[in-house]
Amino acid sequence: MDPQRLERLRQEMQSAGLDAVFVSNPKNVQYLTGFKAMMPGEVQPIGDPEGFALVRPSDVHLLCDGRYIAGARQLPGVTAQLIESPTGPKIIADKIKELVGAGAKTIGFERDALLYSDAVGLLESSPDVKWQPAEERLAGLRLIKTPEEVELIRKAQAITSDCFEHVVKFIRIGMTERQVALEIGNYLRTQSEGNSFDPIVAFGETSCHPHYLPDRNRILEKGQMVLLDFGSIHEGYCGDMTRMLFMGKADDRQREVYDLVLQAQLRCLGGIKPGVTCHSLDALCRDYFAENGCAEQFAHGTGHGVGLAIHEAPRIKRGIEAKVEPGMVFTVEPGLYYEGWGGVRIEDMIVVTDTGHDNLTTTSKVIVELDA
Amino acid sequence: MDPQRLERLRQEMQSAGLDAVFVSNPKNVQYLTGFKAMMPGEVQPIGDPEGFALVRPSDVHLLCDGRYIAGARQLPGVTAQLIESPTGPKIIADKIKELVGAGAKTIGFERDALLYSDAVGLLESSPDVKWQPAEERLAGLRLIKTPEEVELIRKAQAITSDCFEHVVKFIRIGMTERQVALEIGNYLRTQSEGNSFDPIVAFGETSCHPHYLPDRNRILEKGQMVLLDFGSIHEGYCGDMTRMLFMGKADDRQREVYDLVLQAQLRCLGGIKPGVTCHSLDALCRDYFAENGCAEQFAHGTGHGVGLAIHEAPRIKRGIEAKVEPGMVFTVEPGLYYEGWGGVRIEDMIVVTDTGHDNLTTTSKVIVELDA
Repeated sequence: MDPQRLERLRQEMQSAGLDAVFVSNPKNVQYLTGFKAMMPGEVQPIGDPEGFALVRPSDVHLLCDGRYIAGARQLPGVTAQLIESPTGPKIIADKIKELVGAGAKTIGFERDALLYSDAVGLLESSPDVKWQPAEERLAGLRLIKTPEEVELIRKAQAITSDCFEHVVKFIRIGMTERQVALEIGNYLRTQSEGNSFDPIVAFGETSCHPHYLPDRNRILEKGQMVLLDFGSIHEGYCGDMTRMLFMGKADDRQREVYDLVLQAQLRCLGGIKPGVTCHSLDALCRDYFAENGCAEQFAHGTGHGVGLAIHEAPRIKRGIEAKVEPGMVFTVEPGLYYEGWGGVRIEDMIVVTDTGHDNLTTTSKVIVELDA
Repeated sequence: MDPQRLERLRQEMQSAGLDAVFVSNPKNVQYLTGFKAMMPGEVQPIGDPEGFALVRPSDVHLLCDGRYIAGARQLPGVTAQLIESPTGPKIIADKIKELVGAGAKTIGFERDALLYSDAVGLLESSPDVKWQPAEERLAGLRLIKTPEEVELIRKAQAITSDCFEHVVKFIRIGMTERQVALEIGNYLRTQSEGNSFDPIVAFGETSCHPHYLPDRNRILEKGQMVLLDFGSIHEGYCGDMTRMLFMGKADDRQREVYDLVLQAQLRCLGGIKPGVTCHSLDALCRDYFAENGCAEQFAHGTGHGVGLAIHEAPRIKRGIEAKVEPGMVFTVEPGLYYEGWGGVRIEDMIVVTDTGHDNLTTTSKVIVELDA
């Protein structure tokens, strides 16, 4: 674990007057301590947690019940603390009090990584504690990637690209969406730590659903387009890429929509540099679609940050006025969706540099028309 | 979708004086509307939701953004409501107000299926609404399984048992934990809708971690025991089973610990009948281990309910005084864990009947010693 991570948090704790930070988001726990959670998602119920971290100026405690304590004890630089099971807000509040000591304390917590009922219980059970929102501080730590982190993400994206090459060779008329999704899933589980999310494979008109569960009965036909969206995991870091395939020569409408999406994506990529806002990057796609009369068909935001989590800061969406900075990693993935016809999305992942961006995705965006 | 589900909720709404229930737990949304979420977990961030349901006495609305709206529109008996993206607590509060109408209203919500920051924002943005906790009502709907649901779970558990037979034939000295886990994962993805959780495969002393990530470098050796914990998904319902394998003849200690765990499990199974408390079922295992001087090594609760979620009510744990009733489905999975040596767990899934229980798990619990 990079000791700079804890150091940066401790500097923030000092300037904010925090006696401790209670970390419940499992990705933040992993970032700060190396403790890897098995459960997906970014919130641990206090009644069934894997591990909470309590960061103090001089030490880090990892609070686990009997299921996870043996793993926690093996981590360097961390003191494993066994918590009673079944646990609850009062048990956690009491353990925190034991660790921070008696008297009034100010402790940071993540309002977006505790369930409402858990947070209400925790606050009620710790009347001596002034709880201070710290979710932005913690998300902020992960926002700017170090060069080492960028290389891990680059590798995750390279494995993701290799998987696309594999699919191009593998896919055949007559296969089902589910069959192709299983092949992608397997490839990524074999060649990396796994899938950063369940692969999306949509044939023809089902590609109009930006998020979609591949169907085990839907069979690939000649002339259809295929939307593929998937990502590997490498040393905890996520890959994420979307590409289209055309089973035969793309017809005029397929080519027209593909070109609109590609032009929008290239416009956005061309606009990335330090100091521009997330909103303005989103607008580069959205305004281009508006000029071409299809803004209504762009049913989602332009992109999202990627790192230990598949979705993290920054969000490249309307209304997000935060500015991008060197070291931020995010996707650029405009799409156009027509119910009854289908959808086209093209997604790369980039890192912001001092002067523009470095595209971590090596797969070509030249239209892919397979012999079918 | 079984119309009885909404009917039972509406009866509860009437007796509790609720004008509507806002449903955010994706498993509850699925149970009531048939809308299947892609993201794992039981909480949807309001900033990035798949779909929230608003159940009223006369209709059901499904609130989705552009990514999911096309799927929502295909569901019978549900009105799809497009929500603005990026969404937030105020947008959701305003949409709810639009749907329930002006004036003071009482609306149920799940305190355990909203993030703290989201719930605080939602409550602040809806001053006319009296928000009433409804998480127990909703969990209660799913607590007693119908005979149709029990058959779906029985099928999920049968596929899980088939997978165990497959592993017994597949596993060999020299394979890695990860390799065996991938084979299980693949089998279940091919033979069912997928894995109800990431398979646990632990060789020798790593089996002391009740939850464990299979290692890609850890190689199976002669004389080791193997802990296998996995489950299929069938029509949304989860399977869950744990079994041990011994690579060669089990040594005296392996056999002794195996027998202790098996006896504890059989005692608990023998005690299941309507009216006994979850606490007392847990105590049947815990007290047996205490009599044998190994209560400290039983590092978790005895079991958990299973259904659309892999962990749901009831929890078979200390301090849970709820009584079991016919139609409840839960696991019985005592274990003993020794750091540096390993752990043994045996897990079945059962449904409570009028007079006792019906074990949904058909795999034998006779000790399995493989030629190695």
